[in-house]
Amino acid sequence: MTGPDPAVAAARLAVREHLKDVPEGSLVVAAVSGGTDSMALAAALAFEAPRAGMRGGAVIVDHQLQDESSTVAHRAAATCRQLGLSPVEVDTADVPTTGAGPEADARTARYAVLDAAATRLGAALILVGHTRDDQAEQVLLGLARGSGARSLSGMPVRRGRVVRPFLALPRATTRAVCAAHGIEPWDDPHNGDESFRRVRARKVLEILEAELGPGFGAALARSADLLREDADHLEELARRARAELPNAPGQPGVDLDALAALPRAIRTRVWRILASEAGAPIADVSAAHVESLDALLTSWHGQGPLHVPGGIAVARDDGAIRFSPIAVADR
Amino acid sequence: MTGPDPAVAAARLAVREHLKDVPEGSLVVAAVSGGTDSMALAAALAFEAPRAGMRGGAVIVDHQLQDESSTVAHRAAATCRQLGLSPVEVDTADVPTTGAGPEADARTARYAVLDAAATRLGAALILVGHTRDDQAEQVLLGLARGSGARSLSGMPVRRGRVVRPFLALPRATTRAVCAAHGIEPWDDPHNGDESFRRVRARKVLEILEAELGPGFGAALARSADLLREDADHLEELARRARAELPNAPGQPGVDLDALAALPRAIRTRVWRILASEAGAPIADVSAAHVESLDALLTSWHGQGPLHVPGGIAVARDDGAIRFSPIAVADR
Repeated sequence: MTGPDPAVAAARLAVREHLKDVPEGSLVVAAVSGGTDSMALAAALAFEAPRAGMRGGAVIVDHQLQDESSTVAHRAAATCRQLGLSPVEVDTADVPTTGAGPEADARTARYAVLDAAATRLGAALILVGHTRDDQAEQVLLGLARGSGARSLSGMPVRRGRVVRPFLALPRATTRAVCAAHGIEPWDDPHNGDESFRRVRARKVLEILEAELGPGFGAALARSADLLREDADHLEELARRARAELPNAPGQPGVDLDALAALPRAIRTRVWRILASEAGAPIADVSAAHVESLDALLTSWHGQGPLHVPGGIAVARDDGAIRFSPIAVADR
Repeated sequence: MTGPDPAVAAARLAVREHLKDVPEGSLVVAAVSGGTDSMALAAALAFEAPRAGMRGGAVIVDHQLQDESSTVAHRAAATCRQLGLSPVEVDTADVPTTGAGPEADARTARYAVLDAAATRLGAALILVGHTRDDQAEQVLLGLARGSGARSLSGMPVRRGRVVRPFLALPRATTRAVCAAHGIEPWDDPHNGDESFRRVRARKVLEILEAELGPGFGAALARSADLLREDADHLEELARRARAELPNAPGQPGVDLDALAALPRAIRTRVWRILASEAGAPIADVSAAHVESLDALLTSWHGQGPLHVPGGIAVARDDGAIRFSPIAVADR
């Protein structure tokens, strides 16, 4: 008897690694879209969960963004049941329009639905099918923003109970897994729609691999891992530096000299913490905002209060840096 | 009277910023290849140096790698003299073949010649014409290596007496400067030779800008600035951590537990310092080497001594990590 297809073995091993620390008898669910990556994930989980003494289930999120989305979701559910997963449920997501863009809105809605389903079903882990190619695309999009280590650090293998077992595997592996199982994954028509930034990133990654070497995607993913460690540590140091930052003597605001004395790599992150404490939505505070805030220290020429997102004014005043709400009349 | 062309003004301003801290009467030289960027630099220096009370000169490096290189060098020297620079000298570089690749070998030889010329002429600064596009290409090549913040952090604006005034300017500016002065820059035939990685990076950058937005190159350069600050700070913290790292009690080598207790972002850098202290050429110690070294701490299963470049063995032994030369017989 020969062993399983190498891709099937690699996918199973990747899932198995993440079941090691889960108590026996737990439920672990795969987040399934019906596409290649998540169907390969469902297949690997269906094989590994019973062997690890646990139950494997699936949650299919129907975004209701396309006419056939309900059909796609129920077909994926049927395949998951054939693979042996149980429970398998289809949940619908209401995708709001927040202004963050259709991809971000769908993602936010999807994770909210997954989290609610996992809580309702009592799942210990939610497995998500992102591959190394997704990670590389994520890093490319971060590069296009130009906002430092955190935005280049991609997706973590684990955050809370969300785990990405395939993050070190190329997409070619998930394709091979589906082929080996005779699964016909759903081909998201959005994957050909270049109005989506991620689709363009995918195309660009193919060009980069052709031009700079086939290892480019893997190198991007490796950079992301290293930069994530850097970002984690620097953010931890910045939180400590913030906690130790004295207030300005005898007046509101933080002490100017103490802030200016921090190394740049820490100070830029302390600025973000201060803005966040003042009520700024942290995702909207760009590297350019931080640069102008820092200029209050490094190239002071009497500039007036700066504005950061969330209706916050930041002023340098007599040895202090002060964050305050912008008066409604001034907005 | 109208002012100068905006590109000319931008180039002059960029040079002027870097002459501010140079004592009057000093000599500042431009490193000139005859190409667009360095000819624009020569023009800006020729204008700014006398206005800042200093002398502007030029050093042209003839790499002798192409048949016409001497002609190119002397034509560039003539243009520099017409622009008013003095002294202007042409130096020949002997490009050795070290195995680091023809681009790296030429660069090493070029900086050695520039440094020697600057010392001989008594120059306070050596200006180099790298633009934001060069920086973005550098970051792309670092991404292809996948080895973390330092390799993504590009070129510094200043290191020692080497200064890159144009690092925040797009190449379009240097092209416009040459056009405004009627300078016909030399078009390096290597720029069309795709066997050079940098040339491929340049082509890829054009594709990226077309696909992901015209600001992509600027975003890459901005990322490089932020990552350079991160790398500088983390390396400084790693140097301190190394200095405080105790030796293993009662035996040679550093204390295993103390090393393992460092956060990953610091520990990976301490590994590099330890390897370097043991005689490993630091540029040859890859992220993959560091990963296997770190596995001596994080996934110990009795593995034998590891080898790092420079003929160094690294072994975990009874609470210690020990670096030692590999016995010649074992190499």
